[in-house]
Amino acid sequence: MEFKKTAILGVGLIGGSIALALRKRGLCSDVSGFGRNPERLAEAQALGIIDSFDTDPAKAVEGADLVVLATPAGKFEELAGKIKGSLGTGAIVIDAGSVKGGLVVRLQSVLPRFVGCHPIAGGERSGFEAADAGLFEGALCVITRTDATDEGSFKKISALWKSMGCTIKTMSPGEHDRLYGLLSHLPHIVAYALVNTAGGEGGGEGGGASLGLAGRGFRDMTRIAASSPGLWRDICSMNAEQLLPQLEAFMEQMKSVSQMLRDGDLDGLEEFFSKARALRKGIE
Amino acid sequence: MEFKKTAILGVGLIGGSIALALRKRGLCSDVSGFGRNPERLAEAQALGIIDSFDTDPAKAVEGADLVVLATPAGKFEELAGKIKGSLGTGAIVIDAGSVKGGLVVRLQSVLPRFVGCHPIAGGERSGFEAADAGLFEGALCVITRTDATDEGSFKKISALWKSMGCTIKTMSPGEHDRLYGLLSHLPHIVAYALVNTAGGEGGGEGGGASLGLAGRGFRDMTRIAASSPGLWRDICSMNAEQLLPQLEAFMEQMKSVSQMLRDGDLDGLEEFFSKARALRKGIE
Repeated sequence: MEFKKTAILGVGLIGGSIALALRKRGLCSDVSGFGRNPERLAEAQALGIIDSFDTDPAKAVEGADLVVLATPAGKFEELAGKIKGSLGTGAIVIDAGSVKGGLVVRLQSVLPRFVGCHPIAGGERSGFEAADAGLFEGALCVITRTDATDEGSFKKISALWKSMGCTIKTMSPGEHDRLYGLLSHLPHIVAYALVNTAGGEGGGEGGGASLGLAGRGFRDMTRIAASSPGLWRDICSMNAEQLLPQLEAFMEQMKSVSQMLRDGDLDGLEEFFSKARALRKGIE
Repeated sequence: MEFKKTAILGVGLIGGSIALALRKRGLCSDVSGFGRNPERLAEAQALGIIDSFDTDPAKAVEGADLVVLATPAGKFEELAGKIKGSLGTGAIVIDAGSVKGGLVVRLQSVLPRFVGCHPIAGGERSGFEAADAGLFEGALCVITRTDATDEGSFKKISALWKSMGCTIKTMSPGEHDRLYGLLSHLPHIVAYALVNTAGGEGGGEGGGASLGLAGRGFRDMTRIAASSPGLWRDICSMNAEQLLPQLEAFMEQMKSVSQMLRDGDLDGLEEFFSKARALRKGIE
């Protein structure tokens, strides 16, 4: 056993999948859960995802040597303040959030053994009903490292994600937010905006379209527009500094296509599309 | 047998799949193919997709009672001019292109039994190697109808697509282009621009991202950026009139998100995301 007791704060898709993955691999025997809704927590317990639960996070972490912050990232600092007095010496705290940046620095100042983690898995689903012990198999897990990161905790947590099937990529919190601004946060905004354009105002005469007429391309592109609005409101606003110039850059690209269409610049359009195609083909 | 001989002009994914679907359902026994490259056509013949081929479209359509325009849409008018003198009386011509509008009207003036069709299937794949007799099963097929559409041909072609497993939706060429501008052409431009932003300039310091770090969301969203640049250059430029206000409407949506992020307007962001989520959930 790597850990005796793990406390999962936020028993949803990610928190639930971590609990199941730890248990399946014999990395932890005892799992406690924290959440706001005791009925939901009792359901997760009945499904064997957690062994016990408490609606007080300070109680849920008692005796835990591993604590996982798996609520929406907007709640992490409040939770850190509530649990810090109840954490045992040596207890490691990790998160599984989509935004890092200054948040990791602030959490490390409250929780000395905090290691910021972001498993690139999950997608638009939510809830522990979708939890899966194999969710992280073959996935990338970004682990952030700063000058304040405790080296022993970092090593232990890297080994833990590897045991759950992840490939590890280490980077600074700022670099994480720059990269996942481009690769995840901006795409979410684009998907939401595309749905609102196509299904809403539309542009031009006749308004929007009936989305049921769309093919697989549109469906695949906008699947992430079914993601939790509250979660993505928090992620985007917490990463606004990186996102704003990225949004500008994207709009510049869109403007250039618009101009080429207006000018009938067929060569320019083909070059623009070809450049994107070559980049995209690189990750097939 | 519904048709004696079908000529497929452009033996790629769509043309090849139509050939296989017709044959599988016993709707046609003899299939000829036209293309520019005789080696490729011989491969398609060896795979049993076509029975014969010719690099002269006028010869490929000789004796055909059904002709399918399945090259990129940018070639349809040139092809129509080349085949019109060789078409038998009563031969019906259809296409399978993504753009209709004025093109349908112009093709109908050259080919009196032309019926514009757009099966919503295929995606980013290409080439007859990917052809599949089941490609159209469960798919939507838009069939355009104008004052000049020959009623007998329209009925026969509707029945044909139904036999191949399609649900039929009839609309005017202009309405088709407005709707599929929103549901397909705009999304393609957005996918190309997203890849060029994330993998290229990036915006802000540090340039773009390594796309290999992206999760499933980004991969699903940008799959169509692997589509043929030449094909999409033609589609977008042929539908520029509808697309330009749609691009503007999309950019207005993106600008409003940017402004909300800048203002820290969390309620506005959540409302924007919630509206999109509800629309997207409607087609799950």
